[in-house]
Amino acid sequence: MLGDCLENVRKSAPLVHNITNYVTVNDVANVLLACGGSPIMSDEPEDVEEITSICGGLNINIGTLNKRSIEGMFLAGAKANELGHPVLLDPVGAGASSLRTNTALSIMEKIKLDVIRGNVSEIKTLAAGSGTTKGVDADAADAVTEENLDSMVEFVNKFAKETGAIIVVTGKIDLVSDGERCFIIRNGRAEMSKITGTGCQLSGMMTAYITANPTNKTEAAAAAVCAMGLAGEIGYERLQEGEGNSTYRNRMIDAVYHMDGDTLNKGAQYEVR
Amino acid sequence: MLGDCLENVRKSAPLVHNITNYVTVNDVANVLLACGGSPIMSDEPEDVEEITSICGGLNINIGTLNKRSIEGMFLAGAKANELGHPVLLDPVGAGASSLRTNTALSIMEKIKLDVIRGNVSEIKTLAAGSGTTKGVDADAADAVTEENLDSMVEFVNKFAKETGAIIVVTGKIDLVSDGERCFIIRNGRAEMSKITGTGCQLSGMMTAYITANPTNKTEAAAAAVCAMGLAGEIGYERLQEGEGNSTYRNRMIDAVYHMDGDTLNKGAQYEVR
Amino acid sequence: MLGDCLENVRKSAPLVHNITNYVTVNDVANVLLACGGSPIMSDEPEDVEEITSICGGLNINIGTLNKRSIEGMFLAGAKANELGHPVLLDPVGAGASSLRTNTALSIMEKIKLDVIRGNVSEIKTLAAGSGTTKGVDADAADAVTEENLDSMVEFVNKFAKETGAIIVVTGKIDLVSDGERCFIIRNGRAEMSKITGTGCQLSGMMTAYITANPTNKTEAAAAAVCAMGLAGEIGYERLQEGEGNSTYRNRMIDAVYHMDGDTLNKGAQYEVR
Repeated sequence: MLGDCLENVRKSAPLVHNITNYVTVNDVANVLLACGGSPIMSDEPEDVEEITSICGGLNINIGTLNKRSIEGMFLAGAKANELGHPVLLDPVGAGASSLRTNTALSIMEKIKLDVIRGNVSEIKTLAAGSGTTKGVDADAADAVTEENLDSMVEFVNKFAKETGAIIVVTGKIDLVSDGERCFIIRNGRAEMSKITGTGCQLSGMMTAYITANPTNKTEAAAAAVCAMGLAGEIGYERLQEGEGNSTYRNRMIDAVYHMDGDTLNKGAQYEVR
Repeated sequence: MLGDCLENVRKSAPLVHNITNYVTVNDVANVLLACGGSPIMSDEPEDVEEITSICGGLNINIGTLNKRSIEGMFLAGAKANELGHPVLLDPVGAGASSLRTNTALSIMEKIKLDVIRGNVSEIKTLAAGSGTTKGVDADAADAVTEENLDSMVEFVNKFAKETGAIIVVTGKIDLVSDGERCFIIRNGRAEMSKITGTGCQLSGMMTAYITANPTNKTEAAAAAVCAMGLAGEIGYERLQEGEGNSTYRNRMIDAVYHMDGDTLNKGAQYEVR
Repeated sequence: MLGDCLENVRKSAPLVHNITNYVTVNDVANVLLACGGSPIMSDEPEDVEEITSICGGLNINIGTLNKRSIEGMFLAGAKANELGHPVLLDPVGAGASSLRTNTALSIMEKIKLDVIRGNVSEIKTLAAGSGTTKGVDADAADAVTEENLDSMVEFVNKFAKETGAIIVVTGKIDLVSDGERCFIIRNGRAEMSKITGTGCQLSGMMTAYITANPTNKTEAAAAAVCAMGLAGEIGYERLQEGEGNSTYRNRMIDAVYHMDGDTLNKGAQYEVR
């Protein structure tokens, strides 16, 4: 089933409009191409509505936001809503500054979101309406663990119901919930956190997955999480002696490039509650 | 002959001012260093005229444009014209939005361009004065093929005459025309389109080539197209099992880094009409 | 001793706020992760003070500066000073344009800097209060050589005393001076200059080093220079046939990723005067 979601991306080659940070944007573009999608980046308010109109989905990432790009996010989001395009929000650094927290909350209020994908600290900040996080990485104290798994599943289910969005929390254990069902995913490797932008890459790729699977978005989001985690596992196995995080980044995207539905079906590690 | 154009870049190490998008800018910088040039990036209106003045050539790329950088493009272009520096325009996404189409058309009107390099949909948009393209990739329906080659050569020759610029259309078959002669080039591989920014990289490198070969710009532009395509072929051959588009990007730039005039002369696949 | 500086970075995982150019920002983020630090990027004036507040150190890099990001630099710098966080300035392209020179000089005037790190042309420009440099690379005529070493050491010692900042000049021979002592460092390879942003990467990593070694900043700055140069040596040795500057970039960051204090102590090539 998850493999079908992947194959639908390759078949339909969805065009994804990304308003994203300048730190990881190149990797987001390459992972979108690797998975079978096609990326466009545009953040200028005067440009975004037309660009969104020719795309299939919209990926809003608030890392390195500025006032001009924030305006672009709202305009693009409104246009995507008007056209019925799926919209994903990646609230990078929500909780780390008022501007980021408030921008994310305001986007949630004014734009109908299909998916909100972040680390656990960011998602908790959004659920609480405020927060303090240690930068762009999740606080260790917030982590989803086997011990707190039941309560975390309950938390994301509740937040999904409240927002009407699929909630995706990524970390050692990943959760994907639409309020009714929660995918609990155990793919990936800890070393992925030593590559900048694996979260941003996942958000870009996930936008392609939900765009290519419009009637099946929860599975599509879960498939994207499994595919990225599995690519992290495959890429890690392929590392040669002496290779570190920079080459690992390439090998991970390379693994996305070669992944097919069968590989994903065999490698996906998840349960549904 | 094409090999001499390459060697002239290595000998003169031209400094190239790039006003370019933030998606592929790092690769543009590295490919410029790889080919023997030297990159500088600057898009702030208050900064661009002085930066252009110390450079040899100017590369204007309208991907991820914004109002501030557009102002920078016009100021830098005027200064480059005043100083007699070669200027290249890469009309990324012309046809995909009014802002991009109009900015490209306005640059063509106000700045004397030595080269306009784009995919076929972008170039057709500029020739028609308007257009609709599917994002930043060329429409399949527009592609230059063996079947429509004669009419496409006629089209680029005519557009080169009209604009006074060398017109470079890249795709499966590449065309480089100065209105009198048209180079038809068959280097490269289809997989290059799965790397973000191969077009942007080519535009950066081509600016170095025309800057280092001021009396021979058409050959220089053709040499850059052949060199990039050949690097794509060499890089592809060097791919190891499991390597995909991310590593391919590196291997392609690596191939540019090691290429000399002899290699280019032997590997270039072109005819002149 | 230098090895301890490296280990302190891994132990304390300093969070570094980077206001840096969009050309090399991804590599800066990955090298910070590789060395054991954690990067955040933010340049919006409304965002920078809070981001700096949650970080341990601030890295200001003026490549691709614009009026908005310049405002962010001053606000972040003032906040870092207020909180006693170490601040590093990388004056990319000082001497190449008035905006860059004046911004760097103004930052020196208004913000207490712990380190100024640049190539020799940039540092000479700042010391003279004006200058003309050939882009973002050092002029060959300015280079630190065995012949002019005594006078260059005197120069950096004097400039360090005048500014109260540790002065770091990088090139074939690197100098790190706090006005009393000068580290003369001979690690690295000439081929590193064919990778875009090795200087920017060093500045990011050095900010992590001085943040993790607050009572020992001169040694920490020297340790960062040795570590980056040594990573360049190790990465170069690992290059396979046909690999060039793009892969070299990855192998260099990979070498930072795997480096420990012992490796640094054994590989560091320096003398102190």
